[in-house]
Amino acid sequence: MALVLLVSAALPAGGAFAQAGAAQGPVQVQPGLAPVLVGGADLAAMRTDGARYPMFAAELKRVRKEVDAAMKAGIDVPVPKDPGGGRTHEQHKRNYMAIYGAGMLYRATGDQAYADYAKRLLLEYARLYPTLGLHPAAKNNAAGKLFWQSLNDAVWVVYSIQGYDAIRDTLSEADRKAIDDGVFRPMAKFIADDQPQVFDIIHNHATWACAAVGMTGYVLRDPVMVEKALKGTDRSGKVGFLKQIDQLFSPDGYYAEGPYYQRYALQPFVVFAHAIEENEPGRKIFQYRDGVLTKAVKAAVQLTYDGYFFPFNDALLEKSLKTDELYQSIAIAYGATRDPALLSIARWQDRTTLTPDGLAVARDLAAGREKPFPYASMLFRDGPDGDQGAIAVMRSGPGDDDEVVAVKNTAQGMGHGHYDKLNWILYDAGRPIVTDYGAARFLNIEAKDGGRYLKENETWAKQTVAHNTLVVNETSQFDGKVKVANTMAPRQIFFSAEGSAKISTAEMAGAWPGVTFRRSIVQVDAGKGPPLVLDLLKVKGDKPAQYDLPLHFAGHIIDAGFPLQQNLATRPVLGKDDGYQHLWVDATGTPDASNARLTWINGERFYTWRMLPPAGAQVIIAQSGANDPKFNLRREPVLIQRVKSPGETTFVGVLEPHGAYDPSAETTEGSTSRIEALRHERVEGADIVTIVLAGGRTITLAIADSAEAGLAHKAAVDGKAIAWKGHFARFDGKGGAQ
Amino acid sequence: MALVLLVSAALPAGGAFAQAGAAQGPVQVQPGLAPVLVGGADLAAMRTDGARYPMFAAELKRVRKEVDAAMKAGIDVPVPKDPGGGRTHEQHKRNYMAIYGAGMLYRATGDQAYADYAKRLLLEYARLYPTLGLHPAAKNNAAGKLFWQSLNDAVWVVYSIQGYDAIRDTLSEADRKAIDDGVFRPMAKFIADDQPQVFDIIHNHATWACAAVGMTGYVLRDPVMVEKALKGTDRSGKVGFLKQIDQLFSPDGYYAEGPYYQRYALQPFVVFAHAIEENEPGRKIFQYRDGVLTKAVKAAVQLTYDGYFFPFNDALLEKSLKTDELYQSIAIAYGATRDPALLSIARWQDRTTLTPDGLAVARDLAAGREKPFPYASMLFRDGPDGDQGAIAVMRSGPGDDDEVVAVKNTAQGMGHGHYDKLNWILYDAGRPIVTDYGAARFLNIEAKDGGRYLKENETWAKQTVAHNTLVVNETSQFDGKVKVANTMAPRQIFFSAEGSAKISTAEMAGAWPGVTFRRSIVQVDAGKGPPLVLDLLKVKGDKPAQYDLPLHFAGHIIDAGFPLQQNLATRPVLGKDDGYQHLWVDATGTPDASNARLTWINGERFYTWRMLPPAGAQVIIAQSGANDPKFNLRREPVLIQRVKSPGETTFVGVLEPHGAYDPSAETTEGSTSRIEALRHERVEGADIVTIVLAGGRTITLAIADSAEAGLAHKAAVDGKAIAWKGHFARFDGKGGAQ
Repeated sequence: MALVLLVSAALPAGGAFAQAGAAQGPVQVQPGLAPVLVGGADLAAMRTDGARYPMFAAELKRVRKEVDAAMKAGIDVPVPKDPGGGRTHEQHKRNYMAIYGAGMLYRATGDQAYADYAKRLLLEYARLYPTLGLHPAAKNNAAGKLFWQSLNDAVWVVYSIQGYDAIRDTLSEADRKAIDDGVFRPMAKFIADDQPQVFDIIHNHATWACAAVGMTGYVLRDPVMVEKALKGTDRSGKVGFLKQIDQLFSPDGYYAEGPYYQRYALQPFVVFAHAIEENEPGRKIFQYRDGVLTKAVKAAVQLTYDGYFFPFNDALLEKSLKTDELYQSIAIAYGATRDPALLSIARWQDRTTLTPDGLAVARDLAAGREKPFPYASMLFRDGPDGDQGAIAVMRSGPGDDDEVVAVKNTAQGMGHGHYDKLNWILYDAGRPIVTDYGAARFLNIEAKDGGRYLKENETWAKQTVAHNTLVVNETSQFDGKVKVANTMAPRQIFFSAEGSAKISTAEMAGAWPGVTFRRSIVQVDAGKGPPLVLDLLKVKGDKPAQYDLPLHFAGHIIDAGFPLQQNLATRPVLGKDDGYQHLWVDATGTPDASNARLTWINGERFYTWRMLPPAGAQVIIAQSGANDPKFNLRREPVLIQRVKSPGETTFVGVLEPHGAYDPSAETTEGSTSRIEALRHERVEGADIVTIVLAGGRTITLAIADSAEAGLAHKAAVDGKAIAWKGHFARFDGKGGAQ
Repeated sequence: MALVLLVSAALPAGGAFAQAGAAQGPVQVQPGLAPVLVGGADLAAMRTDGARYPMFAAELKRVRKEVDAAMKAGIDVPVPKDPGGGRTHEQHKRNYMAIYGAGMLYRATGDQAYADYAKRLLLEYARLYPTLGLHPAAKNNAAGKLFWQSLNDAVWVVYSIQGYDAIRDTLSEADRKAIDDGVFRPMAKFIADDQPQVFDIIHNHATWACAAVGMTGYVLRDPVMVEKALKGTDRSGKVGFLKQIDQLFSPDGYYAEGPYYQRYALQPFVVFAHAIEENEPGRKIFQYRDGVLTKAVKAAVQLTYDGYFFPFNDALLEKSLKTDELYQSIAIAYGATRDPALLSIARWQDRTTLTPDGLAVARDLAAGREKPFPYASMLFRDGPDGDQGAIAVMRSGPGDDDEVVAVKNTAQGMGHGHYDKLNWILYDAGRPIVTDYGAARFLNIEAKDGGRYLKENETWAKQTVAHNTLVVNETSQFDGKVKVANTMAPRQIFFSAEGSAKISTAEMAGAWPGVTFRRSIVQVDAGKGPPLVLDLLKVKGDKPAQYDLPLHFAGHIIDAGFPLQQNLATRPVLGKDDGYQHLWVDATGTPDASNARLTWINGERFYTWRMLPPAGAQVIIAQSGANDPKFNLRREPVLIQRVKSPGETTFVGVLEPHGAYDPSAETTEGSTSRIEALRHERVEGADIVTIVLAGGRTITLAIADSAEAGLAHKAAVDGKAIAWKGHFARFDGKGGAQ
């Protein structure tokens, strides 16, 4: 994976961040040897009160068990050799967790044995580290010394420096000097000064690096080191931690790489911010940019379903809020805001941290102060100025079983970004229904290419056809070129979460030369049951082209409304490149407006995808997994609408959850769609879609080209005049006469 | 699905069941109109105490909600029209639940409104039923009137007669006569006298029929009706309920059709038995055949993992102990035995029944009387005399996460049986790992062939290659002929659940002409982690043949130890018939003893299947789903060892769970196998398998041909002499020198 430098010139300078001035000024470090990452009064409270609050007591027990086991296993600081997932890699990870854990335990209990153990481990590193060159399994220009990439070295420091801070005042001067000079000072130098190509960029890897160096600076009382962390190696402020806060988060707290990496990126942001707050409260780091860091923690929570992150861009599906990054983020954000909604997340996580913030979480949970987290339908703008697209989230309710639609209208998000502008996913009844593949990667599993991103991550997972959005001429957006993709973002034209139909409209121009496409996704409350979801996608190209619109879904196919030509005994591959080489074609068909639907079952509910295929369109039912010699891909179904277009084409689809299958009671209801018809008309300046429900009841959705709020529109639908103001309106009809 | 008549002559007559004499004698019915299916004292207790016990109160609330909703919806007794899953089908199901529920509620609360509602519904049936001929969607010689098959009519009666019994003494004589003569008497006549081909057979459908007729007999005070139910329409006792108890359960309480149908079959057995106990306690029905009915309830529970039934034979994977049949069975068995282990099952089910037995369950749970259910490694013999094979269950512990191996050495089990003698499955960490497809059926989903068993149930799910057992010449066992299959059963040669290695050895002769095969499955505690499982399968055929040994597994392939020839861009189908037409071939290879292994991941653990392929063997990696025009099949992986054999061949395999993948902590351990080598030697009268673990530690398993307990065996293994007595022994070595 290549590190990508976001060229600062491409981003707006200054402007919105002028208020950040409060955080400027000379760096202050505390005198003496006492812990600086946690205040002394808080330390005392942990020791006196910790055992009284169940969640903190449980964490004490958990960490004690882990550290005691590590102590029993003995000191093992191997010469670095293996890549991710390998023995030395895992051992060095275990060691930083042990140094951190032992330090926290010493802080929380005062038990000298933990301080001694952390010291012995660190002294071993003080012997090893100065002997090391670059890691033998290094793959790129960001090589580490303890690990194959320097990112992991930075993570090692972020954990270990916290453990070290907690015990540093217990050490002899000789031991302290050995560790200061043998481990942390040279590691900080390696991370900052020796690798400016990693350190001086706007990227989450650099945030870990800055956090490592900055926290080391506070602990070693080295203001220059802190200043490099805050402002870059040249201390100019053009890069460094503060600039990362400016540029990697949008005003809504959305992180440029997407929810999965937002989780990962948050940790060094909040942990280093917490260290800044402890040492230089005058910087008001948690108020910086209108409190964007705590907004980012809350945004990370909003961008989940049932606790699992929306898997946009490179993302492992199994990643939830139950991760160390989020335990720390929630505790630190609670410390900074005392927002009781965060307590309910800590309750769900069932974990907190062995820190004063963790103590506050545990104490306030024990006192019953939690409030439900306000999961909401909302827009998360992307880009430092919030003008580089957005993720639009529409929820039928705040619960884990409610229907959630997430539309990805964001910018590329650098090297981990997927070529999937205007992609969407849908969850219902606790399950993914319209899906995103996420990343092709088996984290830390050695046999799967050392646990790194797999070749298929490039050839499949990132490609446009692996997502639920337009593909032109079987070619991915931006021709799969990240440098080009980074320069263009969609435009979020409209978003509304009010009333009985929520809507997101966005437009993308330039993903292919001469092609602009616009998509409205509308979550429509239709009364009983989960909402219907309308997908209206309009393409304008300057020449004839083939347009494909895939819908990846999860579930078992129940039936298709249209005749299928089946590939029963040999299945061809759909294409040659851009992900198409990974699709087996199960069947094709040419449905019309009356029968273009596919129904599947997932869990205890049915889902029907009903289409108005463009004239002459073909529907392809396929499955991922072709040309996959290492069995690296999951095998999942997809439906693709394909049309040879003169240039302008409109795709209309409605996703309808329906019915109930109860295997215990052996009852099945509503296994067939309750939509009788779907109609689309283009009128002057607007598109009108009418959904005819069983019994003739109609829902008409009018979507104007213009997003202007006051602009008046009118049209005739089924002989009746309708009129509305602004981008979008909904009209309900009793039917009958229609 | 054809009903299969088990010819009585093929089964041992009398003999073991002579003790059943106590249940003979003239049938007794109670005088008067009072409820006869529940005693009067119990009725009073439900009304006075019910609300005090949380589980009973919850059930009252649940049923009240359901029945109140049904009452609000109004009376709807449609003319029968639709097959399973269709509107009229589902409505008549709802109606019997409503009649039952209203009756129970009247019993439990005394609220007259429920009695009136049940009466109104039943009077509507009294108007409709006499007008009905056979159901228009009937498919075979077991047509119903209310439903497409008479089985459902019988189920209707079993529920409705209970509701009717509860309210019958509240009716006017005219209403009572209208319902007696318009509904239950003619339905009993239809079920018994008009369809002896269904009623007078040894089959679970007939048990429902007998229960319907017998309970109706008690309620209508008709001893002849009861006697027909107990002894068949000719009242000779050659068929009927008592004979069904004799012949459908083994002495261990195993039901001939397998765990899934055991669940289904149990309900009429225990419900009718409860009625017999209430009306004729002198029959001591729950002591009949050494208490086989309550043994059967406990056996049904034993034949589950994490509450889900082992899916042998036709079975839906999603079926658990949380079903109406098992709520009733657990409550009735608790009423009959007061075994506190049953209370913990009721706790897991979180439901009981609105009956005096349900009251006892709720009361004793509230009093904290439950004990853990003793999930055990044990043998469940098949056949009325217990001599028609067995299911061998080996558990590493009683928990939901423990490793469980189930070996299916049973007889065919009639029409729902699969051709899979000596098949096995394995669960670990709460998940299926070595799998059985179960049935190809979408219960009650109209678009899937009316919810009936699908064509693919015959062409795939029942075929031998869809299971983890031997296939000869790509032909299923017994050539897929159920009549032949019903005449032959495997022989369970040995079973031991003692010590650090549990073992089942069984043999099947005649599944193909001239072929005998024998299989030992050994669950081997290897110290840390879940046990290893050895599979030793030995075939003797009287002529050269192709032997296939499939292993169906669940998970994502991590890697193969041997080179694979991949079908990357076109996948051929494996064969023409007997299920082979449904397999896509992903890859083939020709491993040797050093590299024959495949590793996959499932959840947070790795699994390696290590083989000693016979000389010249090919390994095929395939996936189900070819030739499946309706998308009826799930797509699941299988590994097949294939060898052209001169006639005698031995397959050796070891299933090894290993390692841990933790997506939250991002740690992975032990993702590669810890087995260094696998060796097999044939010595005089025995097979010796040695598993060499990392570090050279060895586990040697010696399996003698003979099952004789005292017989002495000796052999030389790696130059060391070993000696043992009996069928099986385990020897552990420190390795090193080896």
